[in-house]
Amino acid sequence: MSAAIEVMRHHRSIRKFTEQALSADQIEAIMASAQAASSSSFLQASAVIRVTDPELRTQVMALCGNQPYIGGAAEFWVFCADFHRHLQWVPEARTGFAEQLLIGAIDTALMGQNALTAAESLGLGGVFIGAVRNQPFELCALLELPKGVIPLFGLCLGYPAQDPEPKPRLPASLMFCENGYPARFDEGQMQAYDEQVQQYYRTRTGGNKDMSWTGQIGETLAKEARPFMLEFLHRQGFCLR
Amino acid sequence: MSAAIEVMRHHRSIRKFTEQALSADQIEAIMASAQAASSSSFLQASAVIRVTDPELRTQVMALCGNQPYIGGAAEFWVFCADFHRHLQWVPEARTGFAEQLLIGAIDTALMGQNALTAAESLGLGGVFIGAVRNQPFELCALLELPKGVIPLFGLCLGYPAQDPEPKPRLPASLMFCENGYPARFDEGQMQAYDEQVQQYYRTRTGGNKDMSWTGQIGETLAKEARPFMLEFLHRQGFCLR
Repeated sequence: MSAAIEVMRHHRSIRKFTEQALSADQIEAIMASAQAASSSSFLQASAVIRVTDPELRTQVMALCGNQPYIGGAAEFWVFCADFHRHLQWVPEARTGFAEQLLIGAIDTALMGQNALTAAESLGLGGVFIGAVRNQPFELCALLELPKGVIPLFGLCLGYPAQDPEPKPRLPASLMFCENGYPARFDEGQMQAYDEQVQQYYRTRTGGNKDMSWTGQIGETLAKEARPFMLEFLHRQGFCLR
Repeated sequence: MSAAIEVMRHHRSIRKFTEQALSADQIEAIMASAQAASSSSFLQASAVIRVTDPELRTQVMALCGNQPYIGGAAEFWVFCADFHRHLQWVPEARTGFAEQLLIGAIDTALMGQNALTAAESLGLGGVFIGAVRNQPFELCALLELPKGVIPLFGLCLGYPAQDPEPKPRLPASLMFCENGYPARFDEGQMQAYDEQVQQYYRTRTGGNKDMSWTGQIGETLAKEARPFMLEFLHRQGFCLR
């Protein structure tokens, strides 16, 4: 329907890259696309750390589950919610509200998605890295993130050296509702989706992974989810009230 | 550089719409673009409520600062973080972690930005509505959002009946850093940006608004930021630990 929609619908995370660097023009266009996203109350409560130093990149990778594509991508950017900048310029600013955590997380993610779409529209590929939240205290020390700043996600970008299939998403009817949240989602559609995901993993892994969607989320959600996060948020001055 | 980048860089929030409805094809393409965004651990922890009932739309608008474009847009969608779906299908799921609030907020915002970019690439316009967080307890009751679901932002979509200028963003050098967060951002660049924003408001409002960026964020951040939000998050089962 439009070139942009084709790009977005074709999205799949790329985790293997060639060694080719991005051009300065590409980087500038990706940054400008990111910054053009909407910003709540025009606060622009985000900062992005571009990790270009190879040694620092290796150290960051070690703090992010040692995912090799963090080291191998042409670009690695750490997207942060940032109210430190505001506190520098508006010392009387009142921060620490849970609402501001939402603003920071939502607005920074709007930027991140624009960055990825921009890159993909240029024939590049990328993957978001939630593992920047694996060891956030240590990552803050390494990247000198002061109080008021929290790393939310990373973004690897580069020229793809793989061509995976897009992953099947929940049927739209299980994600989009009309005029209210349903008392119960349709079980039959859920089961059909479970089978579709299972088939996708079987094909993609040559039978090594044989997992339905509910099976997968069950495994993920049976575990603690970064149980240090609330303490970390508090330490950085977020979500205190 | 690419059609998608042109669309994103041209973004400006649209708050006046014609009465023309979106076609079913457009709505489907926007939904599919949204769903194609990345999802942390493939949790797909989002739900979107499309408010099509005119009376309900009016009630929602009343809870969102009575912003008239919520009533006047062809489409109004409420983007929510959603772990309720998971709890239905995986009753042993462990929720309430602050980390899961971040997952829900980030992933839902990735979807939201794709939705807006998709719409804009079709010649439509839109605006995100943070005011869905104005009266979240009441909005949950109205849209029957159960525990595990929180409204994050709304999105108005429609055919533009205005053509505002894009708003000047922070210079990239004040948003993007290399290899670490700077001890202090450049004051001169900040002042130049302040003047640019002031000029933008003067021109756009015929002199009625005469505000620099630091002036504006100072006003915003001097006030409490939805101080009920933490209580609301807790009530919905978020950010408990």
